Amino acid sequence: MDADNLQLAASLVSPSYISQGGAALAARRRLVKGLLSNRRLPQEGWDEATIEMLLQDAALMDSNTFPGQVGLGEREGRVACPLVARMHCRLAHGIGRSGDIAAEQPKAAGSSMLAKLAAHLAGDALRIAGLADMALPLLLPSATGMALTLKTCLKAITAANLVPIVVELLQQGDHLVTDVAGMQQAVERLGPANVAAVVTTTSCFAPRASDDVVAVAKLCSKLGVPHIINNAYGVQAASLTAAVTAACRRGRVDAIVQSTDKNFMVPVGGSVVAAPAGKGRDWLVQAVAKGYPGRASMTAHLDLLVTLLHWGTVGWARVLQQREDLYGYLSEQLAQAAAQLGERVLSTPGNPISLGMTLDGLAAAAAAANAAADEAAAAAAAGAGSSSEAAAGAAAGGGGSSKKHVDVTFFGAMLWARNVSGTRVLTCGKQQDVAGITFADYGCHISGYPHPYMTAAAALGTTKADVDVFVVRLVRAYKELQVKWRRAAGQQTNLK
Amino acid sequence: MDADNLQLAASLVSPSYISQGGAALAARRRLVKGLLSNRRLPQEGWDEATIEMLLQDAALMDSNTFPGQVGLGEREGRVACPLVARMHCRLAHGIGRSGDIAAEQPKAAGSSMLAKLAAHLAGDALRIAGLADMALPLLLPSATGMALTLKTCLKAITAANLVPIVVELLQQGDHLVTDVAGMQQAVERLGPANVAAVVTTTSCFAPRASDDVVAVAKLCSKLGVPHIINNAYGVQAASLTAAVTAACRRGRVDAIVQSTDKNFMVPVGGSVVAAPAGKGRDWLVQAVAKGYPGRASMTAHLDLLVTLLHWGTVGWARVLQQREDLYGYLSEQLAQAAAQLGERVLSTPGNPISLGMTLDGLAAAAAAANAAADEAAAAAAAGAGSSSEAAAGAAAGGGGSSKKHVDVTFFGAMLWARNVSGTRVLTCGKQQDVAGITFADYGCHISGYPHPYMTAAAALGTTKADVDVFVVRLVRAYKELQVKWRRAAGQQTNLK
Amino acid sequence: MDADNLQLAASLVSPSYISQGGAALAARRRLVKGLLSNRRLPQEGWDEATIEMLLQDAALMDSNTFPGQVGLGEREGRVACPLVARMHCRLAHGIGRSGDIAAEQPKAAGSSMLAKLAAHLAGDALRIAGLADMALPLLLPSATGMALTLKTCLKAITAANLVPIVVELLQQGDHLVTDVAGMQQAVERLGPANVAAVVTTTSCFAPRASDDVVAVAKLCSKLGVPHIINNAYGVQAASLTAAVTAACRRGRVDAIVQSTDKNFMVPVGGSVVAAPAGKGRDWLVQAVAKGYPGRASMTAHLDLLVTLLHWGTVGWARVLQQREDLYGYLSEQLAQAAAQLGERVLSTPGNPISLGMTLDGLAAAAAAANAAADEAAAAAAAGAGSSSEAAAGAAAGGGGSSKKHVDVTFFGAMLWARNVSGTRVLTCGKQQDVAGITFADYGCHISGYPHPYMTAAAALGTTKADVDVFVVRLVRAYKELQVKWRRAAGQQTNLK
Amino acid sequence: MDADNLQLAASLVSPSYISQGGAALAARRRLVKGLLSNRRLPQEGWDEATIEMLLQDAALMDSNTFPGQVGLGEREGRVACPLVARMHCRLAHGIGRSGDIAAEQPKAAGSSMLAKLAAHLAGDALRIAGLADMALPLLLPSATGMALTLKTCLKAITAANLVPIVVELLQQGDHLVTDVAGMQQAVERLGPANVAAVVTTTSCFAPRASDDVVAVAKLCSKLGVPHIINNAYGVQAASLTAAVTAACRRGRVDAIVQSTDKNFMVPVGGSVVAAPAGKGRDWLVQAVAKGYPGRASMTAHLDLLVTLLHWGTVGWARVLQQREDLYGYLSEQLAQAAAQLGERVLSTPGNPISLGMTLDGLAAAAAAANAAADEAAAAAAAGAGSSSEAAAGAAAGGGGSSKKHVDVTFFGAMLWARNVSGTRVLTCGKQQDVAGITFADYGCHISGYPHPYMTAAAALGTTKADVDVFVVRLVRAYKELQVKWRRAAGQQTNLK
Repeated sequence: MDADNLQLAASLVSPSYISQGGAALAARRRLVKGLLSNRRLPQEGWDEATIEMLLQDAALMDSNTFPGQVGLGEREGRVACPLVARMHCRLAHGIGRSGDIAAEQPKAAGSSMLAKLAAHLAGDALRIAGLADMALPLLLPSATGMALTLKTCLKAITAANLVPIVVELLQQGDHLVTDVAGMQQAVERLGPANVAAVVTTTSCFAPRASDDVVAVAKLCSKLGVPHIINNAYGVQAASLTAAVTAACRRGRVDAIVQSTDKNFMVPVGGSVVAAPAGKGRDWLVQAVAKGYPGRASMTAHLDLLVTLLHWGTVGWARVLQQREDLYGYLSEQLAQAAAQLGERVLSTPGNPISLGMTLDGLAAAAAAANAAADEAAAAAAAGAGSSSEAAAGAAAGGGGSSKKHVDVTFFGAMLWARNVSGTRVLTCGKQQDVAGITFADYGCHISGYPHPYMTAAAALGTTKADVDVFVVRLVRAYKELQVKWRRAAGQQTNLK
Repeated sequence: MDADNLQLAASLVSPSYISQGGAALAARRRLVKGLLSNRRLPQEGWDEATIEMLLQDAALMDSNTFPGQVGLGEREGRVACPLVARMHCRLAHGIGRSGDIAAEQPKAAGSSMLAKLAAHLAGDALRIAGLADMALPLLLPSATGMALTLKTCLKAITAANLVPIVVELLQQGDHLVTDVAGMQQAVERLGPANVAAVVTTTSCFAPRASDDVVAVAKLCSKLGVPHIINNAYGVQAASLTAAVTAACRRGRVDAIVQSTDKNFMVPVGGSVVAAPAGKGRDWLVQAVAKGYPGRASMTAHLDLLVTLLHWGTVGWARVLQQREDLYGYLSEQLAQAAAQLGERVLSTPGNPISLGMTLDGLAAAAAAANAAADEAAAAAAAGAGSSSEAAAGAAAGGGGSSKKHVDVTFFGAMLWARNVSGTRVLTCGKQQDVAGITFADYGCHISGYPHPYMTAAAALGTTKADVDVFVVRLVRAYKELQVKWRRAAGQQTNLK
Repeated sequence: MDADNLQLAASLVSPSYISQGGAALAARRRLVKGLLSNRRLPQEGWDEATIEMLLQDAALMDSNTFPGQVGLGEREGRVACPLVARMHCRLAHGIGRSGDIAAEQPKAAGSSMLAKLAAHLAGDALRIAGLADMALPLLLPSATGMALTLKTCLKAITAANLVPIVVELLQQGDHLVTDVAGMQQAVERLGPANVAAVVTTTSCFAPRASDDVVAVAKLCSKLGVPHIINNAYGVQAASLTAAVTAACRRGRVDAIVQSTDKNFMVPVGGSVVAAPAGKGRDWLVQAVAKGYPGRASMTAHLDLLVTLLHWGTVGWARVLQQREDLYGYLSEQLAQAAAQLGERVLSTPGNPISLGMTLDGLAAAAAAANAAADEAAAAAAAGAGSSSEAAAGAAAGGGGSSKKHVDVTFFGAMLWARNVSGTRVLTCGKQQDVAGITFADYGCHISGYPHPYMTAAAALGTTKADVDVFVVRLVRAYKELQVKWRRAAGQQTNLK
Repeated sequence: MDADNLQLAASLVSPSYISQGGAALAARRRLVKGLLSNRRLPQEGWDEATIEMLLQDAALMDSNTFPGQVGLGEREGRVACPLVARMHCRLAHGIGRSGDIAAEQPKAAGSSMLAKLAAHLAGDALRIAGLADMALPLLLPSATGMALTLKTCLKAITAANLVPIVVELLQQGDHLVTDVAGMQQAVERLGPANVAAVVTTTSCFAPRASDDVVAVAKLCSKLGVPHIINNAYGVQAASLTAAVTAACRRGRVDAIVQSTDKNFMVPVGGSVVAAPAGKGRDWLVQAVAKGYPGRASMTAHLDLLVTLLHWGTVGWARVLQQREDLYGYLSEQLAQAAAQLGERVLSTPGNPISLGMTLDGLAAAAAAANAAADEAAAAAAAGAGSSSEAAAGAAAGGGGSSKKHVDVTFFGAMLWARNVSGTRVLTCGKQQDVAGITFADYGCHISGYPHPYMTAAAALGTTKADVDVFVVRLVRAYKELQVKWRRAAGQQTNLK
């Protein structure tokens, strides 16, 4: 409804009412104007109507929706199924060109506009979250990114035919921290020219702390080696974004990679690659953009754009603050639960998201049950009858045979079955192959960590109500399992 | 995206691409412009994107969506549930004011605009269907309308505290036609001043023909009595719209009422009340509009508007033509089926939608089965043992006891159970009370019609494929039922 | 995904994961089970997914969506436009049969089920809101209802060809209250047998109080006259529902009519007609159901059902409580504003929703401006030059000519222009024809109310933030207008 | 609505109607059962209701929607914005695990099920299209795939740090065909052990023919070198799928990569990687699946699944057949247009999708215009006045200065401006750098092709109406441009 159409409408409905309606439409167009001018999150989040208006206009600016368009190419944004078209808001052309995923797509002015806005808003959202002085970031429609700039680092590195060199963490109290000196030695041993990049990690499971990205950045600057920060879900923690910003200011950082779903509560599938602003400092981001072969899905861009418009600056800041508060709340509640269970929360101040709780008591119960089962099995092998076999079977937590020892990791499965997801239970002493490399205690960050433990994260979107329910289920499940294993241990004993 | 915003967008994406996108947006706005200027169906139907653009703009012109609006009244178009808001495209204020359902609603410029457009397009659609020279029609958000202008006439008339006088139809061959002379006598007997209105009907089930609306219109003109045409689903038949148009030109017609769902394939719930154009001729339509108490739902308006935009003139004309063709096709296919079954299609050229087929053979089979059952029951009552009771039970078509006679109307239920809906099976000889009046052979149009029969309609939206499937199921069900009843008749005989 | 399909799915995805997924589906089906068993609001509101699951299942139980169905009738729930079908969740058949709007529709088992559930939930929602001991209410798809049971009473009564007798209210302090004695006299004067019904009103604009429905109910019981309560938006106020309940217990109440949009925050278009439970006490509700001609739209049922499921008992009770709280908040804020402006809030404790504020000061300013304008006009007429004409013109508030006096009602338009809707400004001394009856001071409830005043309502869905913004705009607009009119008065004086 | 709930519903609505509704629900569940059992396209396409039912059930089987679930991890499928959740049908967890994109995701049984179904259906769709004997294909949520298996081959290869060796095509008549001998020489020169893979292409722009994949497959088998077929949009052409099938049967093929958007009319963003069935033959597909780092978006899977269900076997086969027919139609129409313009269609029987038309006449006109402009410029430089400058300017096709020669590629821009997209105009003699390699005549397939030409594709989804409009616009634009350039040439001449 432009001015002409409003004037025509005023011959159907009183001009004064139409004029008010027109003013309301203009108010929404001014919101769009502000967005296009500022390329920042709006102060207040937009309502759904305004977001849909923007998406609709954009979709109608793409050639696949042009009235009267005929397409004689092999890729014309045709969509066979109306339901699919609606799921994509009629945006079908994707983004980028074969030469550059960040390039505009000539057949799709609207999609290109949305993609650019998404990148600008992502940059602004990073800034609000504390990542200062960044160049315009690159949004990638994959959780993976390209080449060596990836988040699940080992997989990504080997996919690029590089050889990963792992520098083990150091234990300090409960904490696992970066061995900066070890890194330096490793680089010098290989020769800086032979090192594609040093990859550090900020967000990770407790008891690991964030890597000391400032120290590593200084080291990389000194050695002349690229430095990539895997900031997977670190945007949500103010201490991590502050550390990354400091690293960029005081040392060398070539790229900072983060996941969109973990940091911005969108469906899985996108990542944001940032780099410090400054002449040439985003060379790697540029290279990734130009190295991404082919046109790509714009879903990740769309999801992020819509979410950031929905939040606005106020909403995004509030969500971030709520997460900071939640970390404190989870710490307290988990500490109380641990105290009740005779366990304790690991002291990991360097990890602002994930918390660990020891499971020593539970592990002891498991060990007792296993010992009793072994004894019973030995007795059985020595000639005992069928009754003891049944007893031995009863000792198994997961319902397995007497051969299978119970394991404290069963506690994780138990929580999952009770609708608690996302916790991890780790007990060191397992080997696993990842990308062809054998890790002792994979997932434990280091070999031989002195406690079995469980982690829980205060992640974006978790609520206090979630924590309350979690703690109740946690305590109940722990006690049930402990009783069960103690009983198993006792029963075996009684059989003697 | 107005010109200002397009210019801003051109700093994000190449101006030439933005310019093309802007041209496409402008092309769609021109479609809206044409609609607002012409107030007629667009030549070609609109695509969904353009329809949604119009609805969205309208919704944003209603005060319940105004950014910054505060409402301190009791009716502010607030919608609690987002899903409900979406189902209504955020249009919540309804239409009309307490004084007039056709009036604009000050709080809802957008809704008012859509409601006006709906009325104009309804008028145009009636015109295309053959109802010429009509005033702007009134859309009502009820299948009922108000006062005496209603479609299910008896109910409506008694709801308005009027006493209906029924003038029986005359049988001519298979046909049942208007007794114009009888009408005249009835009006004169009561005195024209005591007659609220003569109500005629165009669309109805065979074997009834359309009332002779031209003759009645002339009669009403002569007698000075209002004449209301119940044109329930007559918009879809060119011969009916032609007759109504002729009645308006040559006699008195005060209102023509039609259902939106039956004529325009929208969900149940609306009606269109038309009247001939000309000074004062739409007095009754105006009175109904002003007599409709309270604001009302705009759903019926919206459904009709969207459907007519979806069709456009071309689509609507095609749908009408397909129905005309389908009538011929159904006639042929039904005649072939009837021949195969020893029945015949009733000759009802005055009904262009509904067709009747005799069920004489089936009724004969039912009668034979019933006679045999009666005989068996008599024998049983006279002292026969349990075996004959079982036999008597077997004679019942619907699985009932020997007391219940089988009935040819069971054939209708049988078709329904085989996923054929909309057919009616009628056999005269039943009484029914409707609105306090006792009708012999209700549904049969007249008492004592000489055949039991089944009707099927060639209604808007029925396809040739529907007819093909229908005829197969019809023949199969008929034969099965005939065999069953014949067998029942035979079995009883054998028991003797 | 029934058990069979889940088992098949378990050959694609691990059985344990499928099993958890199946458990989640079963949990949702149990919610539906609870709804079908209890026919009450669920304790907690349902999420959108569960609501959509119910609607989808229902839609697929209607014959218009049956796979393989062929329709040979004229009303088969066909929907031409996919967008329209989606707006209705594919529910197209409407509700009721021609004989009874509350009857089930054979072609639409799903729609019928939803309609029944809507009625049951509406009854439960009324109960939660304080309307105790009611029979199953009737939902009507019109804001009007039928016959004499309507909300905008005068219109409705005359539409049914009845003659309304108005018993004027009595003024008590600021309050306007029911003249019970006057009602008794009116009924006795006409003879109880000649009175179709006494209609009382609970919810209304201040300074009118709710009618004394208990006293009137006792009176009607004594006189043997039907009593209909127009409880238009009274469901939201606990004191009103308590009064209605008491009236039902202690006297005669035949029907209680309320609007769905005003009480349940759904789009305009439905009403709920309740009656006390007890043998025969809902005769009028039954009569209305059976008197509603034709099948009808199910949109109003659907909107109400979805909204009540969305709220659940907890949500609905919270919304009601928030409104009660808001009334207190609005009273306080409005009193502060009035004090600031030299006005006062009318004392109307009998109206728990609407509040009035005097506009005496503003009216005085208007009077002064008008007097000055009259004087100037007289002087001009007596030979004054063009300069005074301009001055006279400047006195007009609305920009009119010197002939048009300014009027305190302009204040209402001013608020509307500043995005405040729903307030009413009333100044007694105007006549208006409504339904052919001339009212002095229509809208003022009685003639000659001693103050001009403005009303504002604490209606369901209004927020404290709304009130805060409202009060700021109110004070600002008042002061501006007062200054303007005072200046106009002063300027005229200066011209002398 | 399972059996329990249907039984409860039967206490609200007549059991017989509920029973019919339940039967309809069961009929739809049987469709799902068939899908889960057969893992093939349904014979007839599903309606939207059935598709949505499947998606809804799946979404409710993912842990992010579980009622009562609490998530204490960093990736729990939380979605902040309701609009985003709806765009994804509430499916938020993505697919795969960090170790394998084709693995099931434990937190998302529903998404995993859909992803598996998508892969199976993709395999069936390939089979229907003629790709016989394939293993279960891998769907990738990127248009790029990983490693060397990519479609825009050069980019992809260099992204993987490999060095591409290009074997030039051979010209045969108008055709450009595979130089199989050249390939063999290249591989032998490098040594087979040093060749990562031979990459062939089936679908491409005319005048290039599909590579002789059978011959290359035999060669690779003989040499022991992997062979990857870039079948970008070749699924849609029966001759190409037949050739690929033959190549797999008679030689070595390790992977066949195709785009989803080009072959299945879904939005840009996915690819299907197939390999012949047989022990170990899909090693590369498995490796790609396991090498894809991180969880990934499921949008591409969802789009493809929904589209294939929408089509069913019948719909998909029809779409394929229509494309085959369209190729013939486009050939004819283009030949007629060419004849009219003095051009001809290139004879490229080895390319079943793309057609080329010479632009010799247009190039001649351009050359004449340029020559005239040069002459004029030379004259101007030699001292001519201002009038000739204007004339020189007039010679420029694109409105550029006299320095810029007109170019036949301008014809492509002209078509685009007239709403014809997808055509390409090529004239050899340009150099371009792609991925660091300099190509003479990039886009021309070989250097020095003897004609400038235009291509147009008979791609999936193109209609006869598109072709009709295209040919009209083509002829008109050609003639306009020819006239313009001839005039420019003539005017210059006249100036002499």
